[in-house]
Amino acid sequence: MLNLKHIAINSFNENLAYVHKDCDAYKVDDIKTLTKVEIHGGVKPVYAFLQVVDDARLVKPNELGLNNEAFEQINLPEGANISLTLSPPPPSLASIKRKIAGNILSAGEYASIVNDIAARRYSNMDIASFLVASGSFMTASEVLALTEALIGEETIRWDNESIVVDHHCFGGVPGNKTDLIITAIVAAYGLPMPKTSSKSLTSCAGVADTMSVLANVDLDEDRLKALVKENRGAIACYNSLPIAQANKIISSVERHIGITQQQHLAASILAIKLAAGVTHLVLDIPVGPSSRIKSTNEAMRLRKLVEYIGDMLSLEIDAVITDGSEPIGNGIGAVLEARDVMKILRNKPDAPQDLLEKSLFLAGRLLEFDPKLRGGQGYHVAKEILQSGRALETMNKIIHAQGKAPQPRLGHLTRDIVATTAGVVESIDNARINKIGVLAGASQYPGAGLDLLKKVGDRVEQGETLYRIHAVNSTDFAFANSVVDGYTGYEISSKGGY
Amino acid sequence: MLNLKHIAINSFNENLAYVHKDCDAYKVDDIKTLTKVEIHGGVKPVYAFLQVVDDARLVKPNELGLNNEAFEQINLPEGANISLTLSPPPPSLASIKRKIAGNILSAGEYASIVNDIAARRYSNMDIASFLVASGSFMTASEVLALTEALIGEETIRWDNESIVVDHHCFGGVPGNKTDLIITAIVAAYGLPMPKTSSKSLTSCAGVADTMSVLANVDLDEDRLKALVKENRGAIACYNSLPIAQANKIISSVERHIGITQQQHLAASILAIKLAAGVTHLVLDIPVGPSSRIKSTNEAMRLRKLVEYIGDMLSLEIDAVITDGSEPIGNGIGAVLEARDVMKILRNKPDAPQDLLEKSLFLAGRLLEFDPKLRGGQGYHVAKEILQSGRALETMNKIIHAQGKAPQPRLGHLTRDIVATTAGVVESIDNARINKIGVLAGASQYPGAGLDLLKKVGDRVEQGETLYRIHAVNSTDFAFANSVVDGYTGYEISSKGGY
Repeated sequence: MLNLKHIAINSFNENLAYVHKDCDAYKVDDIKTLTKVEIHGGVKPVYAFLQVVDDARLVKPNELGLNNEAFEQINLPEGANISLTLSPPPPSLASIKRKIAGNILSAGEYASIVNDIAARRYSNMDIASFLVASGSFMTASEVLALTEALIGEETIRWDNESIVVDHHCFGGVPGNKTDLIITAIVAAYGLPMPKTSSKSLTSCAGVADTMSVLANVDLDEDRLKALVKENRGAIACYNSLPIAQANKIISSVERHIGITQQQHLAASILAIKLAAGVTHLVLDIPVGPSSRIKSTNEAMRLRKLVEYIGDMLSLEIDAVITDGSEPIGNGIGAVLEARDVMKILRNKPDAPQDLLEKSLFLAGRLLEFDPKLRGGQGYHVAKEILQSGRALETMNKIIHAQGKAPQPRLGHLTRDIVATTAGVVESIDNARINKIGVLAGASQYPGAGLDLLKKVGDRVEQGETLYRIHAVNSTDFAFANSVVDGYTGYEISSKGGY
Repeated sequence: MLNLKHIAINSFNENLAYVHKDCDAYKVDDIKTLTKVEIHGGVKPVYAFLQVVDDARLVKPNELGLNNEAFEQINLPEGANISLTLSPPPPSLASIKRKIAGNILSAGEYASIVNDIAARRYSNMDIASFLVASGSFMTASEVLALTEALIGEETIRWDNESIVVDHHCFGGVPGNKTDLIITAIVAAYGLPMPKTSSKSLTSCAGVADTMSVLANVDLDEDRLKALVKENRGAIACYNSLPIAQANKIISSVERHIGITQQQHLAASILAIKLAAGVTHLVLDIPVGPSSRIKSTNEAMRLRKLVEYIGDMLSLEIDAVITDGSEPIGNGIGAVLEARDVMKILRNKPDAPQDLLEKSLFLAGRLLEFDPKLRGGQGYHVAKEILQSGRALETMNKIIHAQGKAPQPRLGHLTRDIVATTAGVVESIDNARINKIGVLAGASQYPGAGLDLLKKVGDRVEQGETLYRIHAVNSTDFAFANSVVDGYTGYEISSKGGY
């Protein structure tokens, strides 16, 4: 038996167990590799990976240390008696080898993999293997099985609502923060919209990042329900809700390795919506040469896939293919995107028109889920709600109810990227703009990002600013500067426009 | 600037940097994911992954802690002034995405990947992604490029030798410890053989594990050279040599995720041999339905591949396809395998004949690399060296020179697996036997393993012991027991033999 000790280390979604090299209860001198152990003494065994310590101030030979993640799970006080056994490799790891070998996995295999991930029986390396192996190809049935497995056991029920709507964008287009505007419009109309979103995976800012500039997004289930009851809408970071737990662990690995495969993303989005109790979803699929989805054919295949999964799992999906050829709005990064959103809600004349129009279009599609609304009226109703100021009023209520955030400042390290020739902006490369923004620190710091002063079709003079980089710290600023000179992401045609 | 602190934690081949959550020099509260940093102050920047600490006894806000691996690399005393910057993702990670997308990578891309792994700019998750992505397919040119990259910068030179020989087995067959016998014979003959080997990857025991039962295998370069000069042979764990560093890091991830892809293994073996200065290699490719290589066609493809790489990199390779249909020898696990080896060297009548014959055959192939030996004479010369006792004498000299090991005891927890019917052993499943041995603890504890009392073709009575499980600790013993009842790995034909 060993005494439990909390080692206050945050290791980002991996359970670590620290044992002394002369551990009383476990012979560690033969350990050659990362070893999985089971820790007994709590309600359920906790799985962790061994780290061997040679410092009794950190862990004594009669102690077992657990990092934050594992200590929280075992839910015992320091000093509690616990024991340690080697953990056999979970049998579901064999399915990963089968997937590498090119096999189609069964629904049972996906369920086992996801359960083992939720129980932390996979190391991050194992999860990375699963992601890359299953990323090579998945049949529609496999994506369905993965979606169903990812929903998990805990789901949110909305007993008094016949329709619960949400909107999600498949991503790949910087600045695309329609969700905040849509939520305000739909909630003002009166349809319940518990918008769940993640923080950025590989982009400059996720919806939760942008909303967190304005309000607290860490809402628990009771709070979310109360807020939706009160205001018909709320914007929550799904990580704060007790749903789709395995997906959170998988996402943290995806975020690290920077690989987000389309079918995984589809399964992840649909699983979160289903776990959140959503009944009707508008899924925006932006298509463009530098977007996540590059062609209409690809978008169509994705639409068929999500429609199939929606039908099988009773989620009504309206999958909308939209123009993703250039960034949407002017701001890229949470603070700048929140600025654009508030300009639109305030009906400011300098609000970005592309973001405004797209938001009205998508909000309209959502409103048409209401059986009482006549077909084709959604857009006009949405526009009326926005122009009347009711959307702004609802957003202010939502911000107030969630808890107003101390607005972070825009990064003070700036650089203007200017046109080297006069002409017309012919194209803006989404992937490049995203990369420069991420390097400038946008995925870490809300105040970092890019402010696009020119968009496709705009006339520019030589030396005129195309966009401005904002960074919060000097390392990020240097990273962004070091790549932007190679390729700014803007193509200027000197021919003189359309 | 921060003060360096050594945090005595062994994290198994990953550099970790511990910062306080209120770190003076680095804002950590926005960190959402595992973050790569560069630590400056030493000769070269050291790359590590951040762990956030909330305990000033462990790391103060003005300190930066490094785990064993990273502290050793920075090579500065505790208290030294160091600084910390975010590390941009190494550009070679983009090649992994290209590989996932099905592309053929260039030699330059493999070189960049391997360099970045050697510099610890990849997390273990990134390495797992690389292994699974490149494991799906590699062209011969890609395997060549990977091999060349894995050789690394540090190589061992044998200036006074015209031929330096080695033998390596492609693996998949339990108990196959020909190497110790071959080294003794070849060294007794007089050809220099610095046998390098790894500890077990996914098997019950690697050559270095078995040799370490008899002698110290942690030899540095000078020691290895002196020993080969003195005795013409030595058996070293390659991890103790300063060669093929990236390969060691990659292997530790392979060992953890349990996925060893054939082309990676070929590249790894050849790179180690080339880095060790070997000029002539016998590569044993065992083929069998439950071996790593399942068919003669597959073995032939592998032979062509290694011959091609050998020709391109000036390594003379004699690739020999052998029978891998059942385990070789009786012992599986380091102590039991060492017992078999010593029985053969001592010319004991109960020595396993299959291991004896195979060792003579392969040693003969190695001896024939000597231009002075007449073609076809190798086997007979090898047999004469063994039977005369010269091989034993040489092995004893090698053991003495490397440093005799305190022989570990055989695991005292035993169970006899018996035949449920009388008949003849028709087949033994290598993969199953390996799995039971690994679960019994053989890859961790030299004293654990299986002792095969019956082999294919042997007559057995009902209730007679087929093999005996040896375990060192009770958890492993329970694991092995829990699977062996499902399927022992032996098939008994009741028809009455051949």
